Amino acid sequence: MALVVIGGVAAGLSAAARARRIDPRLEIVVVEKGPVISYGACGLPYFVEGRVREARQLLGYTPEYFRRERNIEVRTGARAVAISHARREVTLEAGGRLHYDHLVIATGARCDVAGFAGADQPHVFTLQTLSDAERMRAFLREKRPRSAVVIGAGYIGLEAADALRRNGLQVTVLDRSAQILGRGDAAFTEAVRAQLETHRVELRCGVEAREIGTDRVGDIPCQMVVIAAGFKPNAELAAEAGVATGPTGAIRTDDRMQTNLNGVFAAGDCAEATHVVTGRPVYIPLGTTANKMGRVAGANAAGKRERFGGVAGTSIVSVFGMGFASTGLSAAQARAEGFSPVSARIEANSRPGYFDPRRTTVELVADRSTGRLLGGSVIGEDGAAGRINVIAGALHARLRAEDFEQLDLAYSPPFAPVWDPLLIAAQQLVKEL
Amino acid sequence: MALVVIGGVAAGLSAAARARRIDPRLEIVVVEKGPVISYGACGLPYFVEGRVREARQLLGYTPEYFRRERNIEVRTGARAVAISHARREVTLEAGGRLHYDHLVIATGARCDVAGFAGADQPHVFTLQTLSDAERMRAFLREKRPRSAVVIGAGYIGLEAADALRRNGLQVTVLDRSAQILGRGDAAFTEAVRAQLETHRVELRCGVEAREIGTDRVGDIPCQMVVIAAGFKPNAELAAEAGVATGPTGAIRTDDRMQTNLNGVFAAGDCAEATHVVTGRPVYIPLGTTANKMGRVAGANAAGKRERFGGVAGTSIVSVFGMGFASTGLSAAQARAEGFSPVSARIEANSRPGYFDPRRTTVELVADRSTGRLLGGSVIGEDGAAGRINVIAGALHARLRAEDFEQLDLAYSPPFAPVWDPLLIAAQQLVKEL
Repeated sequence: MALVVIGGVAAGLSAAARARRIDPRLEIVVVEKGPVISYGACGLPYFVEGRVREARQLLGYTPEYFRRERNIEVRTGARAVAISHARREVTLEAGGRLHYDHLVIATGARCDVAGFAGADQPHVFTLQTLSDAERMRAFLREKRPRSAVVIGAGYIGLEAADALRRNGLQVTVLDRSAQILGRGDAAFTEAVRAQLETHRVELRCGVEAREIGTDRVGDIPCQMVVIAAGFKPNAELAAEAGVATGPTGAIRTDDRMQTNLNGVFAAGDCAEATHVVTGRPVYIPLGTTANKMGRVAGANAAGKRERFGGVAGTSIVSVFGMGFASTGLSAAQARAEGFSPVSARIEANSRPGYFDPRRTTVELVADRSTGRLLGGSVIGEDGAAGRINVIAGALHARLRAEDFEQLDLAYSPPFAPVWDPLLIAAQQLVKEL
Repeated sequence: MALVVIGGVAAGLSAAARARRIDPRLEIVVVEKGPVISYGACGLPYFVEGRVREARQLLGYTPEYFRRERNIEVRTGARAVAISHARREVTLEAGGRLHYDHLVIATGARCDVAGFAGADQPHVFTLQTLSDAERMRAFLREKRPRSAVVIGAGYIGLEAADALRRNGLQVTVLDRSAQILGRGDAAFTEAVRAQLETHRVELRCGVEAREIGTDRVGDIPCQMVVIAAGFKPNAELAAEAGVATGPTGAIRTDDRMQTNLNGVFAAGDCAEATHVVTGRPVYIPLGTTANKMGRVAGANAAGKRERFGGVAGTSIVSVFGMGFASTGLSAAQARAEGFSPVSARIEANSRPGYFDPRRTTVELVADRSTGRLLGGSVIGEDGAAGRINVIAGALHARLRAEDFEQLDLAYSPPFAPVWDPLLIAAQQLVKEL
């Protein structure tokens, strides 16, 4: 039996490694179009910043490691250009065909710069691959630009803005939506804006930047540009082979990560996932999800039956040391999904007043008719990740606000106040319901 | 209608404040035997350490505040010595009786030093009240002791040891059990021991210290002694009035915090609670629980129907900057409760390798027959509180290990690795089940 995996970063390598653990005799080949595999893509902004000093710190495993330790063949610089499912074959750009019994498609996503005129200039960057980051770092070192425009205030855009500002640049971030991060949450957007402004980074929302000049974007002069917008799943190769995509444009799968074609799985940034709150397909490409999907795809491709439990859309981004975290649905998203959202937003200390507390903002959203929690956000310098994860767990468990209010959370002055901000928010929410 | 509350710290004041919010016309009197109310008892070790500089930083509200802002009468130095439920009366030590329609008993707990010969010497301390801490701090300043023995390796004992060591003392901690913190968890005990030893504090387990000499405890020379053992609920006053205590010796209540006497409620360190995993009464006196119980007792005493959801026993203690957190049942406790525990213990990084990670140990315990999570522990310098809270939430929600493995937890390099230690532990646990 032969397993072919297209894509050698998060999802693809998770799939290959998991399949090997389950079936020691499976023949496994991973093809990766880029020059390296297994790099920490989420670490790229910190490499640009300079906190991560060397690119090799972001590299995980090498093809040699996989060959030697896992008996997995990994080919880099190998782009798959066609899949013939009738013949169970993957065709490579350089020629040659790979036979498969099972196939895992982990082709990732791309930042589609085609929509931006002038994107091919040398001072314009994306931040998706290690070579993108190396090119950006070289530009910073050699050209010493003093100003930048970042297009797109998603996670990568915000992290890039943070990294460039810390390199001394004047930075302006543009986003075409009125509210950033896809949550339609004005208060969350304003909190990000306030934190950016504290560090003298400007955020302009509702600005469509389609043309990049030699020394400006629109009316904003700048010496470099980062495009962190226009992300699209790389679903074309799969679609041409008859793999169905879903309403989001990404590859549709069942909960075993199998596509509409028997024996063909998809995982990672090219695939949809089911949202645990709505039960509907969503496209939320994130590194941790990619790894989980890959693991499940690999297990099923190796003959084990495993399911992927879906996503809550949990995420966190650090903007100048402040964590901006969210999970599930914002009130606006909940309304769009047909719920009757009720929300409570509180600000409280992360620790007792005598223990150097940090202000923490928590918002919880519940459905009026059932009391069920639908989502939440946490903003703070201290404990935002831990707190958002408690909300995420509650979403998976379908807890109601009144259940959440009862949680027995840890208390000790170095870590939390006697009433954790999560519980204060829950009490407020229960009152509103 | 008159509400009397006996006890003016965490549970009592939470009850009074909540009752007032629900019923603006209720007559509310709080009697507190000590000289101050509403102090942060959990902050006392940090006052001893010196991190909290002044006692007043630990003081919350004053009796004047309650009188003026909440229309609640608070009497300090007022010890209740008898309850006559037939007459609905509380008798005070100084004379005088208070009539009640509803009564909240929040008499707290005490460190019972009667079992320790020599406890009345001036170099022997407990650490329960603000005056205990002030006396200890004065002793440190004036006598400059160079060595201390701490009896009891519970939270207060460990925090006291940390505080005294940071004041330059040589510290030995004794505990009469083979394993500390009541979990019967040898690995957890060893982890605490290792952290103490790194900071040159010795932990001796299985040592019964009943006699305190003028310059030694047993064979250990010392110039001061802290008794942080022998905690008992102050249930005698209630018991004499016919209030039933439970198997733990603390006051038994229903889920509205009502005792066997109609209209008489109990809350805080004098009362039992129901364990969310076992459904059985337990006595786990903690500050956050006291506040929650008080809030529910106050609501019901004011005529609202609210329930207390029970405790998971979630707790965390900082030992020289390392968080030791646990919730639910350890494997040993689970076995004693009739479960068939299966556990997985892993060590992993708190963040990606390129982002200054800290080692984190996670143990998860599940029941073999149902797969249900029963408890867990987290040890680490980074994120232990947040991670234990996710497990606590899962216990409330009765998640199974395989559900827990699916949680969509936040990932971003400054906060967590792509596979959170919680998920690595869950994967291991699912394998073991």
